[in-house]
Amino acid sequence: MIASNKLRQFTQEVFVACGMPLADAQLAADVLLEADLRGIDSHGVARLSGYVRLHEAGRANMKANHAIIHQTPSTATIDADGGLGLVVAPKAMDIAIEKATQVGTGWVAIQHSNHFGIAAYHAMKALPKDMIGISMTNASPLVAPTHSKERMLGTNPICVAIPAGTHWPFVLDMASSAAANGKLEIAQRQGKDLPKGWVQTKDGQPSIQADELKLGGSLLPLGGHKGYGLASAVDILSGVLSGANFGPWVPPFVSFLNPLPNLPGKGIGHFLGAMRIDAFRPADDFKKQMDTWIERFKASQRIDAEQEVLIPGEPEFRLKRIREKEGIPLHESVEADLQSLAKKFGLNL
Amino acid sequence: MIASNKLRQFTQEVFVACGMPLADAQLAADVLLEADLRGIDSHGVARLSGYVRLHEAGRANMKANHAIIHQTPSTATIDADGGLGLVVAPKAMDIAIEKATQVGTGWVAIQHSNHFGIAAYHAMKALPKDMIGISMTNASPLVAPTHSKERMLGTNPICVAIPAGTHWPFVLDMASSAAANGKLEIAQRQGKDLPKGWVQTKDGQPSIQADELKLGGSLLPLGGHKGYGLASAVDILSGVLSGANFGPWVPPFVSFLNPLPNLPGKGIGHFLGAMRIDAFRPADDFKKQMDTWIERFKASQRIDAEQEVLIPGEPEFRLKRIREKEGIPLHESVEADLQSLAKKFGLNL
Repeated sequence: MIASNKLRQFTQEVFVACGMPLADAQLAADVLLEADLRGIDSHGVARLSGYVRLHEAGRANMKANHAIIHQTPSTATIDADGGLGLVVAPKAMDIAIEKATQVGTGWVAIQHSNHFGIAAYHAMKALPKDMIGISMTNASPLVAPTHSKERMLGTNPICVAIPAGTHWPFVLDMASSAAANGKLEIAQRQGKDLPKGWVQTKDGQPSIQADELKLGGSLLPLGGHKGYGLASAVDILSGVLSGANFGPWVPPFVSFLNPLPNLPGKGIGHFLGAMRIDAFRPADDFKKQMDTWIERFKASQRIDAEQEVLIPGEPEFRLKRIREKEGIPLHESVEADLQSLAKKFGLNL
Repeated sequence: MIASNKLRQFTQEVFVACGMPLADAQLAADVLLEADLRGIDSHGVARLSGYVRLHEAGRANMKANHAIIHQTPSTATIDADGGLGLVVAPKAMDIAIEKATQVGTGWVAIQHSNHFGIAAYHAMKALPKDMIGISMTNASPLVAPTHSKERMLGTNPICVAIPAGTHWPFVLDMASSAAANGKLEIAQRQGKDLPKGWVQTKDGQPSIQADELKLGGSLLPLGGHKGYGLASAVDILSGVLSGANFGPWVPPFVSFLNPLPNLPGKGIGHFLGAMRIDAFRPADDFKKQMDTWIERFKASQRIDAEQEVLIPGEPEFRLKRIREKEGIPLHESVEADLQSLAKKFGLNL
């Protein structure tokens, strides 16, 4: 267990040691820590050494200066200059929010980026402004289309963050695959089989083996062909619309795999949006109705009296409250990883 | 088998006989026929008598005049005046397209409406303008949230329509439930069991019984809690943001069930969007890349050499080409339904 502020400080120092300007390092560290606080442990500091290795492989620009390369009153396309999505996505969300302030909504497509951490961090920036936030990204190919055995799509997450009144906001943050890769890693550590419908073998046959991806298998899309369609829409908005790579060409996160030759675009892509509530109706009316929505859904008839009905985002808000007080538990492999980063850069954890 | 133009003409005459102005009746008929041409038989003329019964029950205004009740340069909120979504949604999409022409994107929330047919009709209006079209709607409650046995959400569909170059456009049009209600009806007619994961009993237990909804059961969301989250986001954007009803309060499509008392909003709600491609990058570049995307996905390695990988929307475009030539097959119960409408209104089918 480690205090979140201590871990945030360390993470920031690692990014600075890689040559990142202080303000950017603070932002990148904050995005990773938010994942750990919310219990999305696979997307937090567990990935810090992965970002460092991408930098060392010359595939992540720690001194990136993003630029708006195209815009209209409600849209912008951003070249992230090969930097980390952790840094450019929050800045791009600020641009979306500014455009929404001006004309009601703002939409930003980002090319030439790297992985942006949890989608929820970026979408949730809209909430204090009384806006709805939307974020999505493509990612390295692991998921096979329906009827295919080839890895063509990432776990391409979608987040929709919606303000409420007295309740926690509604925050849906979901991979468009049946299961995120992190859940497979947990099953592997525990030596357990997977539920049916999560993975298939390299020949496209059903499997429940937790290490199937290592054997050349692929993840399955959420609920069959619909998840394939959703992941594809995310890939096109994030990759094709922005001018980033898409489908099987999205560069791998792991530094030991090289990007494919003859890439059709630049880096990986994200797509972000902000919609002012009061561009549709007064924000106070909306937030009161959201409270009604949340209360009615929480009161819906339970199957098991002991098992409550949860609102998307609710478990994460609860856990964050606990982890802010009690600290963040680190898996021993993650702790070892961080200690070796400390040693490499002469830092204290 | 009946020629699509003959069926379109008849459908239009039925709406006119219900008091709808001719131009609106042409539009409503076109939306229903597009469903039949694309093979979404559950959403086409099979529903015509349902709309007539809603009108006869005083729950659908055939002479509706929609009004913009709030707007910004990129958004509008529309009161549909209790009319049919079949009529107001295409008109609202024109407003979204006009706003996108002006400021890059346009987003329209609609309250006080009725069911709008297939989502794809509305989103696809953006395609000839080189825009991406988005459409969604809430609907009468049939789907239970995760851990609940109560019907709280509609099958709340989402459509994303994206232009391509030489290929058919990408058109994802999916219910956010594991299966649409139409698929249960087909299984019932055929006397078949359902796949696991589509429905649960009124006590929230797993079921494969095709008539489970008639016994008080509920539909299950797509892929578990993620589908619950998606359906909820659609409900909030369509219902809460527009000022329509939401969740269990969405008025039933069937005229023999009355809306609940003390409704929190007006009618049912839709949410539509249009994004100009060239608000992000030149449209020709984008469409060339979409062709690359489509060709690469169609060429992805097959599990079974005989079973091709399909692009979302592809089966519907193929079927439409056939049905435009060969006509539309009508199930005998639908044909009987249409004949009784012909008799009621003194029309020829």
